[in-house]
Amino acid sequence: MSSPTIHGIIGYTITPFSADGTRVDLDALGHSIDRLIDSGVHAIAPLGSTGEGAYLSDAEWDEVSAYSIKKVANRVPTIVSVSDLTTAKAVRRARFAEEHGADVVMVLPTSYWKLSEAEILAHYAAIGGSIGVPIMLYNNPATSGTDMSVDLILRILKHVDNVTMVKESTGDIQRMHQLQRLSDVPFYNGCNPLALEAFAAGAQGWCTAAPNLIPQLNLDLYQAVLANDLDKARQLFYRQLPLLDFILKGGLPATIKAGLRMTGLEAGDPRLPVFPLDEPGRQQLSELLVTLR
Amino acid sequence: MSSPTIHGIIGYTITPFSADGTRVDLDALGHSIDRLIDSGVHAIAPLGSTGEGAYLSDAEWDEVSAYSIKKVANRVPTIVSVSDLTTAKAVRRARFAEEHGADVVMVLPTSYWKLSEAEILAHYAAIGGSIGVPIMLYNNPATSGTDMSVDLILRILKHVDNVTMVKESTGDIQRMHQLQRLSDVPFYNGCNPLALEAFAAGAQGWCTAAPNLIPQLNLDLYQAVLANDLDKARQLFYRQLPLLDFILKGGLPATIKAGLRMTGLEAGDPRLPVFPLDEPGRQQLSELLVTLR
Amino acid sequence: MSSPTIHGIIGYTITPFSADGTRVDLDALGHSIDRLIDSGVHAIAPLGSTGEGAYLSDAEWDEVSAYSIKKVANRVPTIVSVSDLTTAKAVRRARFAEEHGADVVMVLPTSYWKLSEAEILAHYAAIGGSIGVPIMLYNNPATSGTDMSVDLILRILKHVDNVTMVKESTGDIQRMHQLQRLSDVPFYNGCNPLALEAFAAGAQGWCTAAPNLIPQLNLDLYQAVLANDLDKARQLFYRQLPLLDFILKGGLPATIKAGLRMTGLEAGDPRLPVFPLDEPGRQQLSELLVTLR
Amino acid sequence: MSSPTIHGIIGYTITPFSADGTRVDLDALGHSIDRLIDSGVHAIAPLGSTGEGAYLSDAEWDEVSAYSIKKVANRVPTIVSVSDLTTAKAVRRARFAEEHGADVVMVLPTSYWKLSEAEILAHYAAIGGSIGVPIMLYNNPATSGTDMSVDLILRILKHVDNVTMVKESTGDIQRMHQLQRLSDVPFYNGCNPLALEAFAAGAQGWCTAAPNLIPQLNLDLYQAVLANDLDKARQLFYRQLPLLDFILKGGLPATIKAGLRMTGLEAGDPRLPVFPLDEPGRQQLSELLVTLR
Repeated sequence: MSSPTIHGIIGYTITPFSADGTRVDLDALGHSIDRLIDSGVHAIAPLGSTGEGAYLSDAEWDEVSAYSIKKVANRVPTIVSVSDLTTAKAVRRARFAEEHGADVVMVLPTSYWKLSEAEILAHYAAIGGSIGVPIMLYNNPATSGTDMSVDLILRILKHVDNVTMVKESTGDIQRMHQLQRLSDVPFYNGCNPLALEAFAAGAQGWCTAAPNLIPQLNLDLYQAVLANDLDKARQLFYRQLPLLDFILKGGLPATIKAGLRMTGLEAGDPRLPVFPLDEPGRQQLSELLVTLR
Repeated sequence: MSSPTIHGIIGYTITPFSADGTRVDLDALGHSIDRLIDSGVHAIAPLGSTGEGAYLSDAEWDEVSAYSIKKVANRVPTIVSVSDLTTAKAVRRARFAEEHGADVVMVLPTSYWKLSEAEILAHYAAIGGSIGVPIMLYNNPATSGTDMSVDLILRILKHVDNVTMVKESTGDIQRMHQLQRLSDVPFYNGCNPLALEAFAAGAQGWCTAAPNLIPQLNLDLYQAVLANDLDKARQLFYRQLPLLDFILKGGLPATIKAGLRMTGLEAGDPRLPVFPLDEPGRQQLSELLVTLR
Repeated sequence: MSSPTIHGIIGYTITPFSADGTRVDLDALGHSIDRLIDSGVHAIAPLGSTGEGAYLSDAEWDEVSAYSIKKVANRVPTIVSVSDLTTAKAVRRARFAEEHGADVVMVLPTSYWKLSEAEILAHYAAIGGSIGVPIMLYNNPATSGTDMSVDLILRILKHVDNVTMVKESTGDIQRMHQLQRLSDVPFYNGCNPLALEAFAAGAQGWCTAAPNLIPQLNLDLYQAVLANDLDKARQLFYRQLPLLDFILKGGLPATIKAGLRMTGLEAGDPRLPVFPLDEPGRQQLSELLVTLR
Repeated sequence: MSSPTIHGIIGYTITPFSADGTRVDLDALGHSIDRLIDSGVHAIAPLGSTGEGAYLSDAEWDEVSAYSIKKVANRVPTIVSVSDLTTAKAVRRARFAEEHGADVVMVLPTSYWKLSEAEILAHYAAIGGSIGVPIMLYNNPATSGTDMSVDLILRILKHVDNVTMVKESTGDIQRMHQLQRLSDVPFYNGCNPLALEAFAAGAQGWCTAAPNLIPQLNLDLYQAVLANDLDKARQLFYRQLPLLDFILKGGLPATIKAGLRMTGLEAGDPRLPVFPLDEPGRQQLSELLVTLR
């Protein structure tokens, strides 16, 4: 399958809510997408972890999916997360995203009951068989409760033709080494504080919500790697690392929404039970952002 | 708050599906409830982990909830699991269950983004404040991704009046010791292979799907404990332990539905990506059931 | 092989040091052994974790081993821990203990480099083949760094004739269930706060340093289990649990030596880097001991 | 304190044994040291994990320590591991090494009983206070059973003047980030398959036994990093990674000794219970070494 060339900085969008939390604020979503694209990111990824995809009703998910793809309007590729607890609903979302123009869909095997390897493989096969666009396999046990070993990932790559990319978010660099050695499929880093080392190890791109706040630093790091300038990449990485650590520790929806508000884009709060960033956290974030400007 | 006396064997119901998996089979659900009550269980708990509550649409959840409560018809208390990823939806379910006559609601803090202790506490407080019936707090990090320490549980008990029972499913007996020593609130065991020791440690009851298959052995174990007959309890426990291990390892919806089918009650398969029990598993289960009759 | 009947409360001895920490105080050791036997324990176990066996020179180890066996003088069986990092030194210790009259030797596979299952099996086989007395296999990954699965333990039992007892100290009751179901070999509990449940699950004995401080409560718990009186056993267990938790958390050499000092037996301090119990700890221990008298 | 500039490739020596395993083969040790220095390593580190320091008698340890320092003869700095279970014995070894001319001593807090932070700090303070040469703090929970957090390491650096270097072997790159951000003290990588990323993150050196087998590749990787050539460093790293993974997985004493034998230097086998490399392992190692020449 010919696949769009996904590389570089892949910007994850938040899902803005109205002040009372009951509605999606599409207007704010549009602004956030424009800001990301104008800043230079190489792809847009709606409805991921940052986008609170798991916290939306089906109707809201459809609304955000269709609107995001249309708003991006092929300025850069769009990668839509279509994860759902049941295979049937994940298939429905994947088809919906493809029909509305997504370039790639991303699939995280969320779970309540622990899944066997055969169940995970069948889940990917069912989704892959129902669409024509490529799939970015996404491994993130911290949120999904399902950890896919590199061996399992390689089996899925072999059995499901349109799984053509891997996003690894365990933060375990040894898994990236294995992917690099054992497969031709490009891998992407989803762990912010691993950005430098993942590129050193050969990652094709960095899936991150950080460009909502510090796009230039993210892009500069990638450029330094492309320019084979390790010293500069290291310097740029350590400059942004305090912010990367902060948004990981504070939770992406809470910290990114707070940071957007500080930069003039009102995107509401995360949905409860997830709290918005508290006052000490906002103070700290504000200081971090000032330092990085 | 005066609370119904929940004790003994609390039977968890499966949620039967039609052959094509798209509809709930209420008729089969009714039969399974009658069988449990006729066998002598002391309470009925619909929509828990066994009941695939997480895999149902909102409409299906409402349907199963209302039907189950009505079918039980106060023959024994009904404990309805109302867990949901967002606080708003969990509150809605809790109110729905109360309005339809549930005696108790059970709350597991499911998560995508890891929750802080303050977020978990606020989640329970919001649900507790919106209903008048008691809440059974449910800790099961293996499925929910959220582990509540005993300290946190004690704080929730202190701050939310109608949290009056604790179901502990980590399988860590030391947590039950702490609950017994540090609180007057009754605790219940949700880990099947810990049944003997949890009773030894003072558990008020055993939350289990096993009575769908071997009710008499489950009830006899409880009776032996009440009769202070440790030797008999040990003997009864080891007799049923192979089955308890089997249903835990094989997954409750898959193994219980397969077992019900063997005993003449067709309840369909679990929803994908969860697989039904495979042929070697069915063979093993069949042999276990024969041995126990 | 005919094996001495090891059962009940197996009392672990500390190794007393002189005030400056450089010498073993054999006189104090003799007193502590007499106290344990006079209190009614069913066996004596020198040089275990409590006995700081790992912190002694070879000459000190020999001295303590020979003295302890002679002092016990067959009033009860003696179980000598002979663990060492190398197989050669463990064999030497096992032979030494046998020659000096030990009834049983206990072997924990300590490690620096992680051991494979084949290496652990060969270690037991080498020791077993060099002596004629029975071996109590000891699993305690928290101190040894080596965790032996039940499967591995069963393989060792099958291949090494004189491994005829298993001491399980992981605190995982499910392992005891497996040992009970899959083997005729008696198992012993080495995790103090699991005392009640281990007996409920069928443990033949309790390996513990607690009888240095509260022998009657330990013995009463065992008697209640023998008398099939679960209610009484539960009551006795919860009565002593705060002390059992305290000595586990505070470290056995530090807490037992502090407690002995409070009861008039000066046994010195643990060897550095292990600290003696600090003042708040001594205060807490003192209060616990008062409560239990 | 003025500290020798330790940087680059720090080569770890094995401890050769006679064919029957009972004696140290000093002659072979001397050859292995000469080979390492002739190949260009920047420092020599005897008696570490690779050197089976934990498996030696005190007399053997002294013999190897004194001989190694004398043999190196200041051609490069010598870093002697002086770890021992008791503080008293570790102090003795540290003094011995200093008296015999070691430039640096390395200290790993090995444990049987888990150590508190205060105990670990006091252990380092006692050793530091008894010698005049600098200490390289060594964190390796996989072998020592003691994990030192970055916070604890920073406290030790602050309180013990001559702890002036940190060797981190958890394989967790985030700890190196913290050390780089929060301290001026140089850190060294002790996890072979993390070599590329540790240098990318700013490690001053790589502590490794690999130069016994593939010194030029190790040195070339370091040179590429110094030359700011990330692409070349990545290429060199992936070339040697299969061997690095192999020696980590197979255990350093077993694999390095087998590899030395293949290259004409007989160094005996590891001490039991550690097995020498088995035939399939030797075959695999031989193929890896052929590929890398």
